[in-house]
Amino acid sequence: MKKISLLVSGLLLASNTAFAIGDAELLKLAKDSGLKPIPKKDYPASKLTATQELGKKLFFEPRLSKSGLISCNTCHNLAFGGADGVSAVIGHKWTANPHHLNSPTVYNSVLNAVQFWDGRSPHLADQAQGPIQAGPEMAAPKELVVARVTTMPAYVSEFKKAYGKDIKITFEKITDTIAEYEKTLITPSKFDKFMDGDTKALTKAQKAGLKLFIDKGCTACHNDVGIGGTMQPFQIHAKYSYAKGDFVGNKDGMVKTPTLRNIEETAPYFHNGNVWSLKDTIKEMGSTQLGLAINDKEAASIEEFLKSLTGKKPNITYPMLPVISDKTPRPDMN
Amino acid sequence: MKKISLLVSGLLLASNTAFAIGDAELLKLAKDSGLKPIPKKDYPASKLTATQELGKKLFFEPRLSKSGLISCNTCHNLAFGGADGVSAVIGHKWTANPHHLNSPTVYNSVLNAVQFWDGRSPHLADQAQGPIQAGPEMAAPKELVVARVTTMPAYVSEFKKAYGKDIKITFEKITDTIAEYEKTLITPSKFDKFMDGDTKALTKAQKAGLKLFIDKGCTACHNDVGIGGTMQPFQIHAKYSYAKGDFVGNKDGMVKTPTLRNIEETAPYFHNGNVWSLKDTIKEMGSTQLGLAINDKEAASIEEFLKSLTGKKPNITYPMLPVISDKTPRPDMN
Repeated sequence: MKKISLLVSGLLLASNTAFAIGDAELLKLAKDSGLKPIPKKDYPASKLTATQELGKKLFFEPRLSKSGLISCNTCHNLAFGGADGVSAVIGHKWTANPHHLNSPTVYNSVLNAVQFWDGRSPHLADQAQGPIQAGPEMAAPKELVVARVTTMPAYVSEFKKAYGKDIKITFEKITDTIAEYEKTLITPSKFDKFMDGDTKALTKAQKAGLKLFIDKGCTACHNDVGIGGTMQPFQIHAKYSYAKGDFVGNKDGMVKTPTLRNIEETAPYFHNGNVWSLKDTIKEMGSTQLGLAINDKEAASIEEFLKSLTGKKPNITYPMLPVISDKTPRPDMN
Repeated sequence: MKKISLLVSGLLLASNTAFAIGDAELLKLAKDSGLKPIPKKDYPASKLTATQELGKKLFFEPRLSKSGLISCNTCHNLAFGGADGVSAVIGHKWTANPHHLNSPTVYNSVLNAVQFWDGRSPHLADQAQGPIQAGPEMAAPKELVVARVTTMPAYVSEFKKAYGKDIKITFEKITDTIAEYEKTLITPSKFDKFMDGDTKALTKAQKAGLKLFIDKGCTACHNDVGIGGTMQPFQIHAKYSYAKGDFVGNKDGMVKTPTLRNIEETAPYFHNGNVWSLKDTIKEMGSTQLGLAINDKEAASIEEFLKSLTGKKPNITYPMLPVISDKTPRPDMN
C-alpha cells in the first residue's frame, strides 16, 4: 500500500514539474517571463486604406527591381510564412547573399524592435530602402525606382489618392508606403488567445511545451509581443560560419532574435538557413545558445508549443498592377 | 456655296470611310470577319472548385522549380496581364530563353487552338509540363516535382479532396490540375459586350479602330474568340533574328498568333519581345506581315480599339501554401 502511494505521489510530482501546472499559473508564468499577446487594436482591419492598398501593389511590384523580375514578395513570400524557403537570399543575376544571410519573415516584422539581422535599421520604412537598392538583391538605384513608378500613370494617380494631389513621389515615399502595407501583416494566433485569458486555446501538449520553453530559458531572448525581435548575444554564427565575410552580428556581436511567430512555416532556420528541421533548431539553440541539453522529447514538446504561434494570415487579394508607358525605363538583366 | 457643299460632302465621305459606319453594320462586319465574343458560359465563376483551388496553389508554387524560387506565376504574372514584362523569359540560374522567346500571357490561353509559339502542344495540361522541366526555366525533373508535392501533407490531402482518396499524385496529375486553374483565367471585355449586341459598349474611337482593324486585314490571323491563337505564316522573325538558334516558327515556318486580349498590358511585343510600343507593333505588323503601310494616325486608332480588349480579371485571393516536411527535397540553386 505504501509502495503504491509512493509511486502515485512520485507520478504526480513528475507530472507537476513536467506540465501539470494549473492554467492560471501557466498564464501568470508566461506573463512574468515577458511573453505578450498582440494587442487587439493591432489586429488587421478587414479593409486596407488607400495608402495600404498602394503599399501592397508596391510590395508585389517586380518593376521596382532593376530586372523587373524581383519584388519584395519574391524573398518575403506571403504565400509561405513571409519568407522564401531557401537558405541564403538569391537576388539579381542569381546572386546569393554575400554573407549567406537568410530572408527573415515579413509577417509581424513591425513587432521587431529593429530590422535586419544586425539590427542596423530602426523601422520598416528604413528597412525597405535596403534590399531594393542592394546589388545582390533588387539592384535598383533610387532614381530608377522613382522613374519606373512615376512613368506609370496609374501609380501617380494612386499616390495622389493616398497622399493628396501635391504629393511628390520620392524613393523614400515609395518605401514608406511599402512599410504602411507591411505593418498590416499581423497574424494573431492561438497563443494570443491564451495570453488574453482563453486558456483553452492551447492544447495540453502546447501548454506543456510552453512551460518547457519558459523553463529552459528561451524567453530570455524570445519574448515580448514579437516573441523575438530584439538584439541579443548570439553564438550560432561562430559554429556555422562557412567563409570569410560570413555574418557575425553587429559590431558588438549582437544579432536580432527572429520572431517565433509562424516559425513552422519559415524553414530553413538560423541567420544562414543552415538547419531545416525545427526540432534540430531547438536542440541546437539549447546547446549552443543556452548551454544546456534539450533532448528529442523536450524538443518535440517545445515544437508543439511553437505551432500555436502559427497565426491567421490576412486575406490577400492579389493586386493588379499598372500598365507601363512609353517613358517607363525598360528591364535591365545585367 | 458650291465650294462649301463640296467640302461638306468630302468630309462626310472621309468620315464614312474612316468610321461612320452604322453600329449594326459594324457588328455584322466584325462577325463576318470571324471575330467572336467569349461565350457567357465560359465567364469565370465567382467561386473556384476544389480542383481549381488546388491548381491555383500549384500555379503560384515556387517549389515546383528546382531552386524553389520560380513559379508559373513568375513568367505568367497574373498581376500584369499574365506575362512577365521582359523581352526574353529568364529562368533557372538567370538563364535567358535560348531562342529569345517572350513569355505569352496565360490569361485566356485556354482559347488558343494550340500552345507555345511553335504550336507544338495541343492544350494547357500538356503545355504546363514544358516550362517546369525545361533547363532554362524551372529546371525540375518530374520526379523532383512529385517528391516536393507528395511530401507536403497539406497537398496530399488537397489532392484527395479534389480527386478522391485513391488519387495517385503523378507529374501529369499535377500539371493537369494547374491547367484546370488556368482555364478559369478568362477576361471578358467591352469588346465582348459589343459582340453580344451592346453596341454602346465601345466608344466611337474604338469602333473606328475596329473598322480599321478589319479593313487592314488584321482579322485574317487575329480572329475567333481568342482574337488570335491559331497557327499562321509569320514574317517578323526573319526581320528580327538576333543569332543562330533564334526562333523561326515550326517546321513549316508557322507561328501561333498571340491573342490580342489584354494586349495593352503585355509589352514587350512579338515572339522575342523586341518592340515595346504597341503603336510601333501595329505598324510593323502592317508593313512586314500584311505588306501595307499603317500610318501613325491609323495605328493610334487601332490601338484605341485594342484597349477595348482589356478584360475584367478574376478576383484572385493570394493562396497560402503548404508547409514542407522533413522529407521534402531541398531547393537546389545549381
